[in-house]
Amino acid sequence: MTLAIGIDLGGTAIKGGLVDESGEVLHRTSIATNAVEGVDAVINRIADFANTLSDHAASRHSRPVGIGVGAPGTMRLPEGVILSAPNLPGWSHVEFVPRLKRLVTLPVVLNNDANAAALGESVCGAGRGVRDMLMLTLGTGVGGGIIIGGRLLRGERGNAGELGHIIVQPGGLPCNCGQAGCLEAHASASATGRLAMQRLAAGECSTLQSILDRNGHVTSADVAAAAQSGDSLAASVWSETCRYLAIACIGLRHTFDPQCIVLAGGMSEAGDFLISGVNDAIHALISPRLGPPPELRLAQLGNDAGFVGAAMTVFQKE
Amino acid sequence: MTLAIGIDLGGTAIKGGLVDESGEVLHRTSIATNAVEGVDAVINRIADFANTLSDHAASRHSRPVGIGVGAPGTMRLPEGVILSAPNLPGWSHVEFVPRLKRLVTLPVVLNNDANAAALGESVCGAGRGVRDMLMLTLGTGVGGGIIIGGRLLRGERGNAGELGHIIVQPGGLPCNCGQAGCLEAHASASATGRLAMQRLAAGECSTLQSILDRNGHVTSADVAAAAQSGDSLAASVWSETCRYLAIACIGLRHTFDPQCIVLAGGMSEAGDFLISGVNDAIHALISPRLGPPPELRLAQLGNDAGFVGAAMTVFQKE
Repeated sequence: MTLAIGIDLGGTAIKGGLVDESGEVLHRTSIATNAVEGVDAVINRIADFANTLSDHAASRHSRPVGIGVGAPGTMRLPEGVILSAPNLPGWSHVEFVPRLKRLVTLPVVLNNDANAAALGESVCGAGRGVRDMLMLTLGTGVGGGIIIGGRLLRGERGNAGELGHIIVQPGGLPCNCGQAGCLEAHASASATGRLAMQRLAAGECSTLQSILDRNGHVTSADVAAAAQSGDSLAASVWSETCRYLAIACIGLRHTFDPQCIVLAGGMSEAGDFLISGVNDAIHALISPRLGPPPELRLAQLGNDAGFVGAAMTVFQKE
Repeated sequence: MTLAIGIDLGGTAIKGGLVDESGEVLHRTSIATNAVEGVDAVINRIADFANTLSDHAASRHSRPVGIGVGAPGTMRLPEGVILSAPNLPGWSHVEFVPRLKRLVTLPVVLNNDANAAALGESVCGAGRGVRDMLMLTLGTGVGGGIIIGGRLLRGERGNAGELGHIIVQPGGLPCNCGQAGCLEAHASASATGRLAMQRLAAGECSTLQSILDRNGHVTSADVAAAAQSGDSLAASVWSETCRYLAIACIGLRHTFDPQCIVLAGGMSEAGDFLISGVNDAIHALISPRLGPPPELRLAQLGNDAGFVGAAMTVFQKE
């Protein structure tokens, strides 16, 4: 049996496991990232983590063929460099692959975390059996991943699939990336919660007020729940989120003519309420003359998608 | 030498030729489409046109390996059906490939015309030697084509690359497709001329007024020329066109991380004035934190791109 080590490097946790070519997880584990300790400490920790997984494989009489890492931020894949990672303080122009390689014996493959997660869903999740698939990961930011002909689209420098930074509203809300009007600024889970809080601060009435008073903030899950209970402010915010997601999905439909678009990340826990909200907005905006609307699906792998997909990038290394 | 017949079916003319695998044109010719005569007459004319090109190849002791056709509109490629073609009156659900096959002896490959043109530019034009390339064809509408790893992206039904119908302005101008705010509605050559005429009709002063009085209409070429001469209305319209093209190019950059984006079609005759206008707008909107801006290039094959690329689809048949 051929195995790979998959690692999902996040701002809070490093998740990983041993995965076979079909995407089946033979062993999973996780540790805290402790990013505050600095770049060196985190890279050392990843190396230890990978070596422990390798030992675990050896105890099962197997040797992984490589280590796939999904990491946040922008990168130059050909050189294995992470240019910047907003959730990892101090990570600027980090020569990640060269440095990790000095600490491990297996080959290392780096990819963007949302790209890796999309590959995971395409191999053994919501996109199983599909040739062309897009994925939007709706969390603190909006990540993206593109599968063409069953393979991950990386782009010239490895920055393909940054779908959160498509501009969906010219002159719109400022985005953490420095642009204005990005999908991420208008329709991430954080943006949805923030928009609700801004409208409460402006004096609108809503059942969300008591949640804000109690928790100090409102999440996209709070907005989804309140909207489903008939709260009109929440319904209005949720419908705006769904409209911007629909605008992005329509653009992706006309660009790729894919078999499906998968919605993942924290906001996808709203489930069918999210799918039906985006579908309704798509139907209100798209032209049937250009062919059928995109098929939306919910992600299936949850927190495993990142490291499972990272392992798959080892098998799909170009 | 391996040859293919390439045919570019347009609303006005059928252009075609004999093309080798490197994209070199050995013979080119064209006839009027006469679309008013109806679907049957046009399909018969295409068959005669192809058979004449085949005879021409025979006179050079060669036999083409197939006929590639680039056609306008939406299609279902797996069945070779043209669903609708706005510039070809009466073309609705036409079983194009099955019908043409009855009239010719060679295999027939159908593709969207803008997709075929992009493949032509990638094989032997502005994208020669490039793996990942996008093309926007700016004319009456806005066509698109996507090359990944040197191959044309077709999508599930053959409708990938419909980049003119990405929504760049939510709630924006109505598009011929039935959507609102499409790139085509805001930044095609026709849209640029129309916008100038609307502003003249609203009473704004411009040197374009005398062109409107003389010709009865204003073209995007008129707008570009007047903007370059310092006319302020023309400069404002041109800069709005460039801004919407920039919004689309930024989205495509973040989606594909391509090596270049090629601008083609009538409006690209403005040359460096178009490239610099769109580049300026990109620099004003894009975040450098997400990596370098896309490289824009002008198309090189002009009217040949469509039939050259259509011939290439024969060699790249999946």
